[in-house]
Amino acid sequence: MTQEQPIRGVLAPVVTPFSKDLTPDPQRFLAHCRWLLAQGSGLAVFGTNSEANSLSLDERLALLEFLLDAGIDPARMMPGTGSCALTDAVQLTARATRAGCAGVLMLPPFYYKGVAEEGLFRFFSETVERVGDARLRIYLYHIPPVAMVGISPGLVERLLARYPGVIAGMKDSSGDWSNTRTMLDNFAGSGFDVFVGSESFLLANMQSGGAGCISATANVNPAAIDRLFRNWQDADAGDQQQRLDAVRGAVERAPLLPALKAVLARYRNDPAWATVRPPLVELNAAQGQALHQRLDALGFAMPGLNDG
Amino acid sequence: MTQEQPIRGVLAPVVTPFSKDLTPDPQRFLAHCRWLLAQGSGLAVFGTNSEANSLSLDERLALLEFLLDAGIDPARMMPGTGSCALTDAVQLTARATRAGCAGVLMLPPFYYKGVAEEGLFRFFSETVERVGDARLRIYLYHIPPVAMVGISPGLVERLLARYPGVIAGMKDSSGDWSNTRTMLDNFAGSGFDVFVGSESFLLANMQSGGAGCISATANVNPAAIDRLFRNWQDADAGDQQQRLDAVRGAVERAPLLPALKAVLARYRNDPAWATVRPPLVELNAAQGQALHQRLDALGFAMPGLNDG
Repeated sequence: MTQEQPIRGVLAPVVTPFSKDLTPDPQRFLAHCRWLLAQGSGLAVFGTNSEANSLSLDERLALLEFLLDAGIDPARMMPGTGSCALTDAVQLTARATRAGCAGVLMLPPFYYKGVAEEGLFRFFSETVERVGDARLRIYLYHIPPVAMVGISPGLVERLLARYPGVIAGMKDSSGDWSNTRTMLDNFAGSGFDVFVGSESFLLANMQSGGAGCISATANVNPAAIDRLFRNWQDADAGDQQQRLDAVRGAVERAPLLPALKAVLARYRNDPAWATVRPPLVELNAAQGQALHQRLDALGFAMPGLNDG
Repeated sequence: MTQEQPIRGVLAPVVTPFSKDLTPDPQRFLAHCRWLLAQGSGLAVFGTNSEANSLSLDERLALLEFLLDAGIDPARMMPGTGSCALTDAVQLTARATRAGCAGVLMLPPFYYKGVAEEGLFRFFSETVERVGDARLRIYLYHIPPVAMVGISPGLVERLLARYPGVIAGMKDSSGDWSNTRTMLDNFAGSGFDVFVGSESFLLANMQSGGAGCISATANVNPAAIDRLFRNWQDADAGDQQQRLDAVRGAVERAPLLPALKAVLARYRNDPAWATVRPPLVELNAAQGQALHQRLDALGFAMPGLNDG
């Protein structure tokens, strides 16, 4: 057997649409996934901007099954499977791995704060052992501003030493380039793929041996982000990066996840897309209007929406 | 029908025993619950020190059923039912309420940080509406050092105005007496029961119109804490408080939850009790020895363990 190529490039933490009664809407979810794939983006379903932790385990499993049954290519998927509960993490990771997903993106357990590195090591180690599948590829998810529990270089080192090949990379959403740089310098040489958590760092990451980005804004601007990923060595890469930054800046001046859904609602002409689950709150009218004006001023568009 | 008396006094966030394979151990759990009840403590199962968020929803539901089937009185129970996912919170809250539990102790959804009060209001509001049971009594769980998402006086005020009677009280684990004082001053007069999250504040809480405490250390020192609750107006209340503080201080010089389990393992002569789930880590030998020496120096004992 040949070794599968690891997943690289641009992935969207796919936003999860809800019906009015706040149940996940699989048809809209599938349409959005198809559009993202057509635009060159992979599918990091069940991420922070997917409201994954606002979904029950059963809801996540059902959405995953729905995508697989609909023929979405698991080799383009990196589902989020981290959880506070080891048993939940194991169940979702095992299902994704058995389905042939390219990898899983794992938050550390995030309820207890200030936990020992040893405890985090055991959590990931137990997950690997219990899943017990040679196809498992874990990408560690470092997002201290939200999870408040991080993935330290020391933890990466221990896990890589114990599970080489299985520990496949990380997503760094620290927003701290010096941390990303440390991870690249220490681990990228041994095939550990570092994704940045925002396209703002995409060019820098590619210039430093990184693997791509997994970014919220890829839900609305995937083709342009993918273009920079593919052409980061071109002369206009800096200009491309600036245009990506302008769009991201326009979106994230509002609360990011509700803003993404507001953009989807507008460009799909489908107000239902704006729905979020508590504890998040949708944008109010003024926030939405200001967001759309900022994007219009940049000539922002969402091409190919009919592909979905 | 007469109105049930609300649950007051001392409750233990019941520690959850695990087998070697890290599955919850219902028999040891039941034995510990029976001992706690015999010592005068109510059962706040599925709290922070129960490793509740390290359990799947199904594991929590199964443990609850096991206790109910074994005849544990639901009127002495206040299960923790908060969750990041609305659907999980609703399912567990509905089950506990239907079973006749005295109330439920609800964490706010704790993954997203810096969420709007409106989003938290909607989370609790949706829970009340979806459970749709007049017997529901919600105790709000404020533990900002761990959850990082708190319950503000403004949120309590909105919820009380909308759901009087259902919003029954709170547990304040801020460790900040001025916050507890604010909650007591603002809300206790209208029948809102304030429990402190540590027996260190029990006397002060009772002197100020509070309802009791829900404290980790009640897992090992329930009778003495209950004695102060019942006799806080006695002349020796200050001395009692000091003795409680000494025991708590001896325990919490080690990591608190593993320390509680180490104490149970020792006094039950049952090493299996020391097991914790990742990301927590059991005490090492030196930590355990020092803990036991501190307790021995205080003449600490756990009477009546044969009751379980």
